[in-house]
Amino acid sequence: MALTYKDTDPVRLSEDRKSIIILDQTKLPGEVVYQSIDTLDGMYDAIKTLAVRGAPCIGVFAGYCMAVLALGYCGLDTEDFVKKLEADGEYLNSSRPTAVNLSWAVKRQLGIMDSGMKSGISPERITDRLFDEAAAIHEEDIRMCMKIAEQGLSLLKDGDGLLTHCNAGALATTRYGTGLGPILLGRERGYNFHVYSDETRPLLQGARLTAFELVNAGVDETVVCDNMASLLMKQGKIQAVLVGCDRIAANGDAANKIGTSGVAIIARYYGIPFYVLGPYSTIDLDTPKGDDIVIETRDPEEIGSLWYEKPMAPRGAKFYNPAFDVTDHSLITAIITDRGILRPPYDKAIAGAMSGRKRGRK
Amino acid sequence: MALTYKDTDPVRLSEDRKSIIILDQTKLPGEVVYQSIDTLDGMYDAIKTLAVRGAPCIGVFAGYCMAVLALGYCGLDTEDFVKKLEADGEYLNSSRPTAVNLSWAVKRQLGIMDSGMKSGISPERITDRLFDEAAAIHEEDIRMCMKIAEQGLSLLKDGDGLLTHCNAGALATTRYGTGLGPILLGRERGYNFHVYSDETRPLLQGARLTAFELVNAGVDETVVCDNMASLLMKQGKIQAVLVGCDRIAANGDAANKIGTSGVAIIARYYGIPFYVLGPYSTIDLDTPKGDDIVIETRDPEEIGSLWYEKPMAPRGAKFYNPAFDVTDHSLITAIITDRGILRPPYDKAIAGAMSGRKRGRK
Repeated sequence: MALTYKDTDPVRLSEDRKSIIILDQTKLPGEVVYQSIDTLDGMYDAIKTLAVRGAPCIGVFAGYCMAVLALGYCGLDTEDFVKKLEADGEYLNSSRPTAVNLSWAVKRQLGIMDSGMKSGISPERITDRLFDEAAAIHEEDIRMCMKIAEQGLSLLKDGDGLLTHCNAGALATTRYGTGLGPILLGRERGYNFHVYSDETRPLLQGARLTAFELVNAGVDETVVCDNMASLLMKQGKIQAVLVGCDRIAANGDAANKIGTSGVAIIARYYGIPFYVLGPYSTIDLDTPKGDDIVIETRDPEEIGSLWYEKPMAPRGAKFYNPAFDVTDHSLITAIITDRGILRPPYDKAIAGAMSGRKRGRK
Repeated sequence: MALTYKDTDPVRLSEDRKSIIILDQTKLPGEVVYQSIDTLDGMYDAIKTLAVRGAPCIGVFAGYCMAVLALGYCGLDTEDFVKKLEADGEYLNSSRPTAVNLSWAVKRQLGIMDSGMKSGISPERITDRLFDEAAAIHEEDIRMCMKIAEQGLSLLKDGDGLLTHCNAGALATTRYGTGLGPILLGRERGYNFHVYSDETRPLLQGARLTAFELVNAGVDETVVCDNMASLLMKQGKIQAVLVGCDRIAANGDAANKIGTSGVAIIARYYGIPFYVLGPYSTIDLDTPKGDDIVIETRDPEEIGSLWYEKPMAPRGAKFYNPAFDVTDHSLITAIITDRGILRPPYDKAIAGAMSGRKRGRK
């Protein structure tokens, strides 16, 4: 299976524009299966079940979703077209509350719809513009990932041991990824990194997806359990931590996969730099601080029985399954974005980097 | 399955003294299976595969092992009897290098053998003494656990949220356990604790064993992934952390299941007390500090494929599977032993508590 980040497109539009082809990430690394998604419920489920996952990738997917849905409503009059698309956008948004890129892409497409409506053009013309915008979001993502990879690589040295959590590679985005971008780009340029991937319970994105991407790219990759970070750092095996993010608040607090904040606290204890990598679309100025970010709680069975041959906890045991946590900005050494490397104080750095960003609906 | 800590005896001697009956902990919580162990290889494997596990429990088991093995050598002359038992003790010791109780119990039994030899008594008489000593180790363990439970409970309040890591209950010891002792004793006395158990990858002792014990004892118990400690603490759900230990160095550094040191660092960050609980037999004055403790590395497949229906990482991925880590004494709020609650500075507190302990071989 020689699938690499260069030919992995986790999300793309079908030729006839009636559906979106996704790489089903729940089947990796055992099977490489593509699915065609053409209904609102199919789109919702693809995000909810993590067949499509990774904040930037969900953003690209949502952009295409809005266009494909609009295509289905082209026969309606403009008022109904708008109502349908607004309702669908709201429903899509509810599939995963924590990642900002989902609502960001939906808002951006509704902004395109609004301005088309104001110009008095037909639903068909609006729909064309939505497809153009979806393609633009996709291309921007590819460019952003490349820029993030370049910025991140400037902070690393050949031979570094690096720890990652969850998956922020090509599968979570497009091409280089965010958290994995500097590793993949560095590999191309002859850097020999020693990468340790937290397996990332309960859904094992680190073992299933990050290891899959890094092994395929020829990176020296070792999977560890989430509880091994402290020992690795104490043993001197880790020179930097690289993670992606699902939402960054205006003060620099960063929501990412559950366990990220623990890794950040441990890295701080050992004096190891902790880098958060993400495109500017992950920064949400409407969220003042981390406490304002809604944390998704998922099905308890993901802990108790998913993946296993038989249940791994006794009957009567309860489970608590929060999918994200928020890393306090004070624990983050730098936020690496396509608009540059942001350093504390983050409120000012973020405000500066974000000035001029005003796309989509208010 | 109403098995509780009051009738769970993970290790006991058979009536005819020729074998040891163990509760096979690799089969829990799905099946309650007892095994009869009567060979040296069977004993080694029982420890190595974690059918018998938990530092104090391994100590009790090793005490019986030495007596059962001696019984098999009673036909030999004294010199061969001694040689055989010494070689067997050394082999048993190699099954798990990190827990001190194993080598402690073996040494203690070799001390009994030495003094029997010096008194000029027969291998048969020495063997009787070894059985008596094994029973004494077992009874001491029960008394020690009760004392640890009492000491630990004095530090907790009704309604507390408590986090545990791995399993330090009746299955790891006898009756009340160490880390779980205050919880089980508190439950008997009407305390309502809210206990969160780290599932404890890769072997899931928290989900399989701790949850099994606590649910059966009627404790409010929730299983979480190892990477959730930071979020739980931030949410105010945790008032104290209770863990067992496999070896405590003379300076208070404590080896325990992999991940323990990470939990300790996170607890320190949030200002939450972190308690290590264990019998005095876990303290090893011959180990000056944590760096001197050998950390067992286990089979990579425990991470990559054990428990799963299909492998959870791609072919070509490596794994690193250290079984323990060492928590620096500076992160430990108190070490709770049957000889009292030890507080920093630990070197002095430990030296004081241990004065007078001189059993077994030098």
